[in-house]
Amino acid sequence: MATHGKLGSAAVRNVRGSAIRDLLAITDRPGVISLAGGLPAPELLPTERIAAAAARALAAPSSLQYGLTTGAPALREVVHARESAAIGRDAGSVVITHGSQQALSLLAQVLLDPGDTVVVEDPGYTGALQVFATVRANIEAVPMDGDGMCVDALRPILERGGVRVVHTVSNFHNPGGASLSGERRIELARLADEFGFWIIEDDPYGRLRFRGDEVAPVAAHTDRVIRLSSASKIIAPALRVGWMHGDPAVLALVERIKQGADLCGSSLTHAIAADVLADEPWLDAHVARIRSVYGERAQALHAALTERFGDRLTLTEPAGGMFLWGEFGDGTDTAAALPAAADAGVAYVPGAAFAVVGGHSTALRFCFTTAAPEVLFEAAKRLATVL
Amino acid sequence: MATHGKLGSAAVRNVRGSAIRDLLAITDRPGVISLAGGLPAPELLPTERIAAAAARALAAPSSLQYGLTTGAPALREVVHARESAAIGRDAGSVVITHGSQQALSLLAQVLLDPGDTVVVEDPGYTGALQVFATVRANIEAVPMDGDGMCVDALRPILERGGVRVVHTVSNFHNPGGASLSGERRIELARLADEFGFWIIEDDPYGRLRFRGDEVAPVAAHTDRVIRLSSASKIIAPALRVGWMHGDPAVLALVERIKQGADLCGSSLTHAIAADVLADEPWLDAHVARIRSVYGERAQALHAALTERFGDRLTLTEPAGGMFLWGEFGDGTDTAAALPAAADAGVAYVPGAAFAVVGGHSTALRFCFTTAAPEVLFEAAKRLATVL
Repeated sequence: MATHGKLGSAAVRNVRGSAIRDLLAITDRPGVISLAGGLPAPELLPTERIAAAAARALAAPSSLQYGLTTGAPALREVVHARESAAIGRDAGSVVITHGSQQALSLLAQVLLDPGDTVVVEDPGYTGALQVFATVRANIEAVPMDGDGMCVDALRPILERGGVRVVHTVSNFHNPGGASLSGERRIELARLADEFGFWIIEDDPYGRLRFRGDEVAPVAAHTDRVIRLSSASKIIAPALRVGWMHGDPAVLALVERIKQGADLCGSSLTHAIAADVLADEPWLDAHVARIRSVYGERAQALHAALTERFGDRLTLTEPAGGMFLWGEFGDGTDTAAALPAAADAGVAYVPGAAFAVVGGHSTALRFCFTTAAPEVLFEAAKRLATVL
Repeated sequence: MATHGKLGSAAVRNVRGSAIRDLLAITDRPGVISLAGGLPAPELLPTERIAAAAARALAAPSSLQYGLTTGAPALREVVHARESAAIGRDAGSVVITHGSQQALSLLAQVLLDPGDTVVVEDPGYTGALQVFATVRANIEAVPMDGDGMCVDALRPILERGGVRVVHTVSNFHNPGGASLSGERRIELARLADEFGFWIIEDDPYGRLRFRGDEVAPVAAHTDRVIRLSSASKIIAPALRVGWMHGDPAVLALVERIKQGADLCGSSLTHAIAADVLADEPWLDAHVARIRSVYGERAQALHAALTERFGDRLTLTEPAGGMFLWGEFGDGTDTAAALPAAADAGVAYVPGAAFAVVGGHSTALRFCFTTAAPEVLFEAAKRLATVL
C-alpha cells in the first residue's frame, strides 16, 4: 500500500482560510452587535422587485436552460451601456461573472503565472489576497492614505520589474474606506501605459456614494484596465451577478478559463439582473434610498465613536461604501481586545486581518450598513467599556 | 516603455477552447436538426414548480443575502440524505457548487499540482479535460468498452507512479454512453485503496436510467471517492446547483479554495433547489417522466440509425443519460463529413472532439434529448444521404 502522504496541492497550501470568517465564529452569538460583517442591509433588499422580475423570467423556459459562458446577452448589453457611460467611452468586452469575486479569480488565473508580481493596497481586500495566493503570485504591497493607494510608492516596485498586475479598490476601499483621488487615478493610468502592467480596478461600491462628487474611474484614462463591478451591493448578493469589462483579448482568455471553471452563470439570475438593471427609474430611486440610509448610519457611527474615543482614535471620513476604518494612536491592540469586546456585546474586525506584510495591529474595520443609528451609538458605548 | 510581450498565463495557454462550442457555431443555423448539443429537453423544465419554490424563497430576505461558502444548510442536508441513501452509508461532508463543473474545477485545484498524473477515460468528458489542463496536470488515458473504463488498463499506469486522481463518469458516460459495470466499480475502488489515489466519481446522469437495474456507485466501495452530481439534468441547469461529497479533509480544502473562487453560491437558487429536491413525491414523478421521454427518444434514434446504416455503424445501447455513441467500421471520417451533414440539415459532434490522445476519427456523439422521435427519424434519413 503506497498512499501519497500529502493532502492538498501547492495552490491550496499557499492559501490561508478567511481569518474574518474565523473571527465571525467567535463573535456570532446572541446579544452581540456585529459591525464585523460586510453585508448589505437586509431591509433594503428589494424582494418584491426581484420577485416580479423572477416571475417574468420564468415565463420563458430559456431562463432555466444552460446559458453562454460570457453571460446572458441582454445582461451584457445593459452592463456595457452603463459602464461605457461611466468611463466616457466604449467599455470593451463584457463578461458576466459569479459575483466580482469570480472575476478576480479568473483574472488572476489568466494574467498571473507563479512568481509574477501583483501589487495590492495595504491594508488589503482579503478576497483579492486569497486569489493571488492561490495562483502563487508574488504579492507586493503599497500603503494607502486618505487619497487611496500611495501611487508614488509604486514606481520603485515597477522599476524592479516583474509587475504584471496592480489591484486597486478605487472607491470606498474595503477595509480602508478611502477613495483613490482623481489625480492619482491619472498617474496610475500613466504608469500602466509606461510600464505595461494591467490594472484591475475593483469597484463594487462606486454607486454607494453619499457625500462629494463622482470621480471618473481609472478605466477612463487608459485601456490597460480591466474594471470589475457587481450587482451585489446595489441589488442583491444572491443574484451572484458581477462583471468585468475591458480589453477584448484578455476577456477572450477569461472566457476560455470560465468554461472550465463553471461552464456558465445562471440564466435565471442573469434574466432577473438584466430586468432590474435596465429599469433605470426604479434602480435610481432604489440606489438613492440605499445611499441615504448608509450615509445616515456612517455619520452616526462616526459621531458616536468620536464622542467616545476622541483623539485616541483616528477615523476615515466615509463618503460612501460600507466601511469605516479606525486607528488607535495609543497602541491599543485590536486583535487582543476582540474577545473582551465580544463579551461586552460588540464585534469588529481587527486591522491585522487585512495586513499584507504585517502591521495594522492598532487598527480596526467597522461595517455600518446593518445597524440603525441608535444601535450604532450603543455599540460605541459598549466598545468604550473595553478599548 | 517596457510592455510585457506575453498575454495570458501558462495556465490559460495550456487550455484549448471548447471544440464543441466552435462546432456548434458551424452547425447552428435554421433548418438544421441539432443532435450536437447536450441540453435537457426544454419542454421538461419544471417552470411552474420552480416558480412556486422561488415565490416561497423570496418571502425571506435571507434568500437574497450572501450565503455560506459550503452552500445553504437546508440544501446540504437534503443532498447529504440522498447521497447517503445512494451509497448505503454516511456520505461524508457536502459542498454545494456552481454546477458539477465547478466541483471538478475546485477538486483539480485542491488535488493536483502541475505535473501530477490524472487518469481519464478515452473518449473523455471535455469539461474535465479542460480543467485538468488548466492546472497543468499530466493527463493519461485509459480506453472504454461497453462496461465503461477498462480498469485492467489502469494498473500499469498506477505502477509507473505519480497518479493522484482517476476521473470517471460512472453512469451513462458523456460521450461514450456506457456505464461502469458493478465488478469494475469494486475493482477500481480496490485499486484506489491499494495505490492511494483519489477517485472523482462524476455522476450527473445516474438518475436518468430508463433501462436495467441501478448499480451501486463506486463511492459505495471505498472512502477514497469524491462523488459529484448535480440538479442540472433532473431539475434545471439554470439553478447552477451541483455538489460533491466525501472525505471531510478534502472538502475542507475545497471550501478554502471556493472562498477565493466565488465566496458563495446563490442563496436564491439554493433555496429553490432545496425546496424541490426535498419534495420527493413531486421529484420522483418528474424524474420518471424525464426517464420515459428520454428512453423513448433514445430507442427511436437507435432504431432509425440502425435502419439507415446497418452493420456499418456500431452503436451503444443506451440504458440512460443523454447520449448515443457510434463508430463507423468503414473508415468514415466524421469530422470531415460534418459540413456536408450540416448542409443536409443535421448536426452531431465528431468523435475526435473527445479524443484524449488522438483517434476516434470514425466515431460520433448524438444527443437524443431535445428532439421528438419523428424528428430523430428525419435526422437519420438526412444523415444517410451524406455519410
